Amino acid sequence: MTVEPVDPLFADAPNAEIEAVEENTRHDSLDEDNQLKSDFVRRVRNALDAGEVDAVYALVEPLHPADIADLFEQIDADERPALADAISDLMGGEVFAELNDHVREGLVDELSAEDIADIAEEMETDDAVALLEDLEPEEQQAVLAEMEPEERAAIESALAYPEETAGRLMSRDYIAVGEHMSVGELIHYLRDNKDLATEFWEVFIVDARHHPVGTCQLSWILRTDRHVTLSNVMKRDQTLIPVGMDQEEVALRFQKYALISAAVVDESGRLVGQITVDDVVHIIQEEASEDILRLSGAGDGDINEPILMTVRTRLSWLVVNLGTAIIASSVVGLFQGAIARFALLAVLMPIVSGMGGNAGTQTLAVVVRAIATNELTSSNTVRMVLRELRIAIANGLSLGLMIGSGTTLLFGNPHLGAVIGAAMVINNLVAGLAGILVPVTLDRLRIDPAVSSAVFVTTATDVMGFFSFLGLAVLTGLA
Amino acid sequence: MTVEPVDPLFADAPNAEIEAVEENTRHDSLDEDNQLKSDFVRRVRNALDAGEVDAVYALVEPLHPADIADLFEQIDADERPALADAISDLMGGEVFAELNDHVREGLVDELSAEDIADIAEEMETDDAVALLEDLEPEEQQAVLAEMEPEERAAIESALAYPEETAGRLMSRDYIAVGEHMSVGELIHYLRDNKDLATEFWEVFIVDARHHPVGTCQLSWILRTDRHVTLSNVMKRDQTLIPVGMDQEEVALRFQKYALISAAVVDESGRLVGQITVDDVVHIIQEEASEDILRLSGAGDGDINEPILMTVRTRLSWLVVNLGTAIIASSVVGLFQGAIARFALLAVLMPIVSGMGGNAGTQTLAVVVRAIATNELTSSNTVRMVLRELRIAIANGLSLGLMIGSGTTLLFGNPHLGAVIGAAMVINNLVAGLAGILVPVTLDRLRIDPAVSSAVFVTTATDVMGFFSFLGLAVLTGLA
Repeated sequence: MTVEPVDPLFADAPNAEIEAVEENTRHDSLDEDNQLKSDFVRRVRNALDAGEVDAVYALVEPLHPADIADLFEQIDADERPALADAISDLMGGEVFAELNDHVREGLVDELSAEDIADIAEEMETDDAVALLEDLEPEEQQAVLAEMEPEERAAIESALAYPEETAGRLMSRDYIAVGEHMSVGELIHYLRDNKDLATEFWEVFIVDARHHPVGTCQLSWILRTDRHVTLSNVMKRDQTLIPVGMDQEEVALRFQKYALISAAVVDESGRLVGQITVDDVVHIIQEEASEDILRLSGAGDGDINEPILMTVRTRLSWLVVNLGTAIIASSVVGLFQGAIARFALLAVLMPIVSGMGGNAGTQTLAVVVRAIATNELTSSNTVRMVLRELRIAIANGLSLGLMIGSGTTLLFGNPHLGAVIGAAMVINNLVAGLAGILVPVTLDRLRIDPAVSSAVFVTTATDVMGFFSFLGLAVLTGLA
Repeated sequence: MTVEPVDPLFADAPNAEIEAVEENTRHDSLDEDNQLKSDFVRRVRNALDAGEVDAVYALVEPLHPADIADLFEQIDADERPALADAISDLMGGEVFAELNDHVREGLVDELSAEDIADIAEEMETDDAVALLEDLEPEEQQAVLAEMEPEERAAIESALAYPEETAGRLMSRDYIAVGEHMSVGELIHYLRDNKDLATEFWEVFIVDARHHPVGTCQLSWILRTDRHVTLSNVMKRDQTLIPVGMDQEEVALRFQKYALISAAVVDESGRLVGQITVDDVVHIIQEEASEDILRLSGAGDGDINEPILMTVRTRLSWLVVNLGTAIIASSVVGLFQGAIARFALLAVLMPIVSGMGGNAGTQTLAVVVRAIATNELTSSNTVRMVLRELRIAIANGLSLGLMIGSGTTLLFGNPHLGAVIGAAMVINNLVAGLAGILVPVTLDRLRIDPAVSSAVFVTTATDVMGFFSFLGLAVLTGLA
């Protein structure tokens, strides 16, 4: 979105005394971990309950937009519209950009298309897209109809790209100039054209076809003599992001090459936008969190999600696991006779299956993260499988020896000790192999290993835990 | 570390034709996911095996330092010294900065103190600190003795701060000027002083005591008339990082306030360094990964860690879990008589305990992430506990009804169906409550909830799963 022609002279020169007061007030509201103090949140809620709109405003006004967004997440859903009303002129694009998706949806539902359009116009394109992409199609159209043609066009072109791609993330506000310009000419160009972007960290150098040929960090420009041409300042070798690239891949590139911003190009190689690292930081955090939550079957794990949605996500995962639990239980069912004759088997069998589950989960967590961060690749898969196998043998033998000798001593039954020790070794091997082979195979099949691996691995360790222990007991004539 | 007085005119003006060739070669080595192609890795290994040093060099030379670092991680540990020898003049600070800690340690062990000092001098302070902090104290002293006094002093002062704090992360290369300077004077200052930093994204404005009073993004400077004084361009309100702040907290600030760089201040408020977002991105990734790995008891989960270290970490976690498994098993032991009379109880009991474990893990994953990202705070704990309780009731009733009616139909035994259904409801409640109360309590006690929660939660769900099911069976006269 085009930034208003703000003159930095006036935009960023607040009165120093007022700032000092604000700093103090802000320190009253934040604790040492930079979280809103619970005492502060309570004062806001009390003022809201009492209908003291001015008091609410006075409390919230010194906060940074990111902290105002946090405040909405800290209070109950039914208090949020009243807070939004009380501080309506603080509810700008910056606050909405920082709000949790579900909290934002709740607030946006209360707003007219015109209000939403006003907020979206204040935002950078990528944030405005994030706001509009969750609206119902009719509402989205109504909001777009209220917007300025230029901003509307920018958002519509972003919405034309698939969700979670570079096209949705990028901003159309970037600086691009030709390589024959000198440093002095560039500075004049930036000073004289008031409607250029203000948030940029590098200047892209493009050829006549608008293809990027190099990039200049702003610090290089500031440190170079005004007569030098940009072709002699720029770095030709730069990381270009294809507009259709998945956002997780974009985040990995930023991380790997320590990028602050990067040029986005379309299929023909034309420069169409830029992505800055502050938008990527959220993705890195989200993608890493996603893996932990998906491995545990907790969906998005968003604590602001409507509760019915959460129940549905978690329950469907639990039902899948119920299926695997029934399969494991039917293995035990095969040995009912042996258990009736020797009930101690039933007492000990959960140890074998449970320990296998723990070992499998360890391997799975390591492998899922290594796949996500591109550390585990086709070049080193064989080495990693052998590594997990050796770890499984070492752990299995250690645990088997411990539980085997403990059982022998406690129950005075070396036969039982040998059976549980051997079963423990077998199940640790199953755990280690399943823990790496399942996610690697799913990844080759282009299925997210974080989502589906755990079911297969725990089924394997449960089934093999019961089968190896009870099977060995029967086979060796223990029961 | 002080950057060499490089003139951007010469530093970044590579020959365009050579670059074009390099680009092609680089595309030969990377696949569509930007990973090194396994075919490329194989060619390097074959050339290494054959002792064709020139061929190895020709293959590796076009790679970005981050990709060279990846290559070391892809090949076997015993091949790495040979590769380092073959490409020794490519093994600069940038490659070492990108290497995995364990891989780097392996290579550094082969180098003399003088070589290490040369590499460290090429690096930014924070990367040099990361290289030196893992050395043995005597070796560290030997390396420091080989370094230039100025760089040595910078590293020693960084090493004086505790590990994982802002003091270790920050760079001493920043730009700080007084507020009465004009934009034009600042640009002259930056052009004329060749030994200033080249990597900076904002200029800090300081008072006579070197306390930060404001900050100017470089884009604002470039867009403002040369006669304007900096006090009229700068933003007074900025996020200052105390030098002793934990790196995880630093990362949360960068994320929350969308920072590109930030000033670091000492106890007296003096500006002592700057942190840039590219160093923080790694931390965000690491901290989020850490939670998943710790919850699973996989330690750091680093696939390059020496295998004995991995076995020790994982085994100690498994031994703790063996203890909890024995506790759970002893609960089953209380009901041996009932199981001997009615072996079907042993068949069904793992379903109740296992499902409780799954539900507890879901809640735990959500809560651990919400605590880590400051979303779950003292202001909304009660609301979140009630939320998890409602989810647990909904899931418990659904699963209890399913397994209860299924058991009734399959075994023609409504009494057994009622017992397992009720036990399932009870254990889901235990899972939901333990899943949130355990990590919240540990966090209050300043214990990392990701490390220790899982043991308590799975012990609770195992014990209560067996106890509620077998206990209800005996109590109601089923066996």
